[in-house]
Amino acid sequence: MRALVIHAPKDLRTEDWQDEAPGEGQVLIRTEAGGICGSDLHYYNHGGFGPVKIKEPMVLGHEVSGRVAELGSGVEGLSVGDLVSINPSRPCGSCAYCLEGAPNHCLNMRFYGSAMPFPHIQGAFRQALVADAAQCVKADGLTAGEAAMAEPLSVALHATRRAGDLLGKRVLVTGCGPIGVLAVLSARRAGAAEIVATDLEDKALSHAAKSGADRTINVVSEPDGLGDYAGGKGYFDVLYEASGAQPALVSALAVMRPRGVVVQLGMGGDMTLPMMQITGKELELRGSFRFHEEFFLAVELMSKGLIDVKPLITHTLGIDDAIEAFELAGDRSQVMKAQIAFA
Amino acid sequence: MRALVIHAPKDLRTEDWQDEAPGEGQVLIRTEAGGICGSDLHYYNHGGFGPVKIKEPMVLGHEVSGRVAELGSGVEGLSVGDLVSINPSRPCGSCAYCLEGAPNHCLNMRFYGSAMPFPHIQGAFRQALVADAAQCVKADGLTAGEAAMAEPLSVALHATRRAGDLLGKRVLVTGCGPIGVLAVLSARRAGAAEIVATDLEDKALSHAAKSGADRTINVVSEPDGLGDYAGGKGYFDVLYEASGAQPALVSALAVMRPRGVVVQLGMGGDMTLPMMQITGKELELRGSFRFHEEFFLAVELMSKGLIDVKPLITHTLGIDDAIEAFELAGDRSQVMKAQIAFA
Amino acid sequence: MRALVIHAPKDLRTEDWQDEAPGEGQVLIRTEAGGICGSDLHYYNHGGFGPVKIKEPMVLGHEVSGRVAELGSGVEGLSVGDLVSINPSRPCGSCAYCLEGAPNHCLNMRFYGSAMPFPHIQGAFRQALVADAAQCVKADGLTAGEAAMAEPLSVALHATRRAGDLLGKRVLVTGCGPIGVLAVLSARRAGAAEIVATDLEDKALSHAAKSGADRTINVVSEPDGLGDYAGGKGYFDVLYEASGAQPALVSALAVMRPRGVVVQLGMGGDMTLPMMQITGKELELRGSFRFHEEFFLAVELMSKGLIDVKPLITHTLGIDDAIEAFELAGDRSQVMKAQIAFA
Amino acid sequence: MRALVIHAPKDLRTEDWQDEAPGEGQVLIRTEAGGICGSDLHYYNHGGFGPVKIKEPMVLGHEVSGRVAELGSGVEGLSVGDLVSINPSRPCGSCAYCLEGAPNHCLNMRFYGSAMPFPHIQGAFRQALVADAAQCVKADGLTAGEAAMAEPLSVALHATRRAGDLLGKRVLVTGCGPIGVLAVLSARRAGAAEIVATDLEDKALSHAAKSGADRTINVVSEPDGLGDYAGGKGYFDVLYEASGAQPALVSALAVMRPRGVVVQLGMGGDMTLPMMQITGKELELRGSFRFHEEFFLAVELMSKGLIDVKPLITHTLGIDDAIEAFELAGDRSQVMKAQIAFA
Repeated sequence: MRALVIHAPKDLRTEDWQDEAPGEGQVLIRTEAGGICGSDLHYYNHGGFGPVKIKEPMVLGHEVSGRVAELGSGVEGLSVGDLVSINPSRPCGSCAYCLEGAPNHCLNMRFYGSAMPFPHIQGAFRQALVADAAQCVKADGLTAGEAAMAEPLSVALHATRRAGDLLGKRVLVTGCGPIGVLAVLSARRAGAAEIVATDLEDKALSHAAKSGADRTINVVSEPDGLGDYAGGKGYFDVLYEASGAQPALVSALAVMRPRGVVVQLGMGGDMTLPMMQITGKELELRGSFRFHEEFFLAVELMSKGLIDVKPLITHTLGIDDAIEAFELAGDRSQVMKAQIAFA
Repeated sequence: MRALVIHAPKDLRTEDWQDEAPGEGQVLIRTEAGGICGSDLHYYNHGGFGPVKIKEPMVLGHEVSGRVAELGSGVEGLSVGDLVSINPSRPCGSCAYCLEGAPNHCLNMRFYGSAMPFPHIQGAFRQALVADAAQCVKADGLTAGEAAMAEPLSVALHATRRAGDLLGKRVLVTGCGPIGVLAVLSARRAGAAEIVATDLEDKALSHAAKSGADRTINVVSEPDGLGDYAGGKGYFDVLYEASGAQPALVSALAVMRPRGVVVQLGMGGDMTLPMMQITGKELELRGSFRFHEEFFLAVELMSKGLIDVKPLITHTLGIDDAIEAFELAGDRSQVMKAQIAFA
Repeated sequence: MRALVIHAPKDLRTEDWQDEAPGEGQVLIRTEAGGICGSDLHYYNHGGFGPVKIKEPMVLGHEVSGRVAELGSGVEGLSVGDLVSINPSRPCGSCAYCLEGAPNHCLNMRFYGSAMPFPHIQGAFRQALVADAAQCVKADGLTAGEAAMAEPLSVALHATRRAGDLLGKRVLVTGCGPIGVLAVLSARRAGAAEIVATDLEDKALSHAAKSGADRTINVVSEPDGLGDYAGGKGYFDVLYEASGAQPALVSALAVMRPRGVVVQLGMGGDMTLPMMQITGKELELRGSFRFHEEFFLAVELMSKGLIDVKPLITHTLGIDDAIEAFELAGDRSQVMKAQIAFA
Repeated sequence: MRALVIHAPKDLRTEDWQDEAPGEGQVLIRTEAGGICGSDLHYYNHGGFGPVKIKEPMVLGHEVSGRVAELGSGVEGLSVGDLVSINPSRPCGSCAYCLEGAPNHCLNMRFYGSAMPFPHIQGAFRQALVADAAQCVKADGLTAGEAAMAEPLSVALHATRRAGDLLGKRVLVTGCGPIGVLAVLSARRAGAAEIVATDLEDKALSHAAKSGADRTINVVSEPDGLGDYAGGKGYFDVLYEASGAQPALVSALAVMRPRGVVVQLGMGGDMTLPMMQITGKELELRGSFRFHEEFFLAVELMSKGLIDVKPLITHTLGIDDAIEAFELAGDRSQVMKAQIAFA
């Protein structure tokens, strides 16, 4: 089989990769669709981000779906031919955080395509994959592309859990990349009464609008748009900060209501924050990191037609065009989600 | 103008009622639609319920909409001709509970059509009504019937708030009268992953199914249906108990997961509960009573098309047929919500 | 060694019991003190409670302390001679509830001295015990009797967690057996501003008072005491119901504030409750069942002098007087906590 | 009477101030003790802080106690001669935030000695004061100095509420001025299992230790102390950041557990924060601002002997030595809380 292996910044190779056979409780999957995530792009463009850097060649990818090709012993509930979403989150199930119900903080996490431990955890951008049956969620009725969206949708659903009860809340989303737009969809699904989304790109904002945002604001062409909308006072109950950009967070803090909740999703570097405002308005800034059980929920909500991610998949390229796909994925003026077809 | 006045059980009269003029901050409304609630039926059939009994003639009704006919001084944001939903919840705004953000427990509440204090609080089943502008919510784009559904929808939304974050939860609704079906709609709006509804009547269950319940169970024709569905173990995260019937609550407790949340809406009398189960599974039984700010949310969600209550309004009769309307309203094999047209 | 084995109601025997050797990660403990719990008394007097009945001889006991006598391989952090509190809660660590952070609902729980699964889980009222090192908590500076109080204190601490933030709350405790009095101590430790305790026995109430209750009420000699104290209205924020008696719960509900929290600890049978009051005041009735991580906290709080349980240990008898100890333990007019000395 | 009036930085004058008579529901109080707060020092040294600057002469002070000297009409529950703590927090009771139960965010707040609105809200450092009876809390059994500590204790209690349930938590307090040490006392009262406190001054740390901190760390003399204590990993559940200093916050974030709660009390300016850590560990940074109902709780806890603030009052000077008192108050190597005696 072939796999997409990053060796150094801008050095992504399509290489032969060794086949594996499924062990007990495992299945062999022929992968179909793989979405390119912002972190994949960081590895591709810069070899990593912050302290997380590749030290050896690593298969990229963690947003994947595929069809079951072979069952290991003892596997129940899956059949050869099933389309499945594959959960890239593999907590150990026995560390202190796993036992506290916080598996996304597992001390021994083996998340696909991550350079954080060494040796790195190899990713899922390859034509075949052996996975635990427990990672595989049947995606009946979905396309392979939708099934591969379970992962980024899980990130947005986890952030929504972090935000707390959203019924009737006024919600602001800053940054309308895939995670931001999935946050719009998730917030609407969770009962938000009003959703406003901001970005620098009209293309991104048009996706947010189609996904249910009541109002979109281009912060370049409407620099006063957000403040005007808020009427110069605390307006929003909840913020999803999905841009990772300090100016987005700072300008959003100014329009939050007292005791508003800010969920920080965007993985930026250090940021300088107006602490007087956080203290004086008693804002709550909550980090949100990955997900775990939300993966199963993501597939369920898509399968029941309660969340529709199809419009977000704007580009699909074959494995032979992987480099073009990675280049495209970084162009926010055109692309929402670019996926690679592995089959 | 004419009003519907209850004098004694089964003695409901259409009487002339005195006109009023709007004072400062008030408006005169020509009422259009008025929904018959379970408590109206209790007054009609029994003169009240539990310790709450009529002691003097009382205008019934608290689920009403109408059109603004005249503005008192100082009213802004409303115009003559506007269709409005009228919030029957009138807390004092200055008692301890109001200041704790719990206005539904106001010590001086004047809720329309309620025999609880004496003299009674007269209701809104009359052709004209003077209300505070703050009670009136513009219902642009809704029918008068939908606008009158804001009140029962508020009850279901408040119960949903009481249930806490519903995103991804497995929800059971026992009792599919208007409140139960509105709970189905609200739970779905708030992100429930799975909704099961039970009742004794197929008609009620068909409304629950059309409103989004994934599965309905007639507990008469399928006495083991709920237990079988749950697989003989704790299955549901959240229960809305909307029947007020002890057997419904008791059989639902048996299929709740440990730490499951039970929201008790149905206004029954005393019930004998299996405390060992409540203690052993650490269930949480939370009462839910009326609403307040959810009234504004109810109108907003209907206006934005996020909750559709139209299919629930099964019968509309003129004020001259009020007694027929009250008789019909009690027939659960036919009727979901019966409304009276006052215009 | 000898063990206390229940064969049938009132048939408790001191029998020889087989010695065990500690395996990997285990220790051998010479038990010192064992407290008699209400459930031990149920087995002794009635062979069980509700559906939980002994079907074969079972060693009783789950409130025990002892000294480490031998270390199995790989044990760190414990030395021969250490006094330890022994956690009787042994969840599996791998079922769904364990992984949700709710190990007290473990599907494979092996709690000492419990007839619930069959074969029964043998208890800890014996002169020696092999336990996992992870069950043993060093109890430096405590007496053996205090160390054995870690278990019932854990029950009260878990109930306190279930009650939520207690800082500044007005707390009512109904039932001043050991659990009720430990609830008084726990509520005070957690910041309650005011604590009122009720019981039928003056002896029990005097313990509650010494443990920090601001006011005690004997519901026999002062039948109107609680209502008078509350001034005929909602007064308490939190109730610990530790009596298991329906009249205690019902009369307490009447003096709860709207949205008050009721933690049900007492293991009674079915109870008939005023649902109108629960619904109308939006009370929250939460079951509380056993504990897990609170066991470690119990030892820490006692060791740091932040909770003092010594006054509660009113009677200590030798293993040869075990039957006398069990008879005494049921006499609430004299006894708070009776313990057996095994050494 | 005389009052302490700030005219410009370092220009604090003792001036004659006009007498007032109590109106309906009001009382005249002869002030006794007044504590100098950090914000008083900011006005004294710099004329304000951040955007809050004096624009006209303003009486300072908001931590005061006194004796009732005269009752206005309709006042009940207070008598001439009573020692009272005077709540400086005067929310309007009718704005949106007051009605949500968040009076500390009142849109019309009149907090004593605050330059925020204009004309400024005059403060309480004067020999007599007319206050609403509802602001006055009887402080039976306390000294005038303790009674004046109700205000800063309220700040710490409010922060403790913001932190959520503290029972059994591991707590870090950065900054051991009066607010930090009161946070130590409050955290212990609310059930914290372990409290570690840091500062730059040994004097401050010795107060923290006497108030119950299990361990104190001087970050100057022990620069690696906190990291070593935490064992190089996530250790603390809760942080009270009471220094307002960026290095304190940043180094504390590194030793927080995943999902740890950071309560930001210290009123610093902008701070540069490691967002990757906040996001990756899903920390929760919550602002805490003033207080309201906690004022009543503060007096109750002191009166019941559940919190002892007496050791914190290190210096008391007469009104004629006010400037010396202000100079002293800024010397953290000597002073914990300096108070002025007005009587």
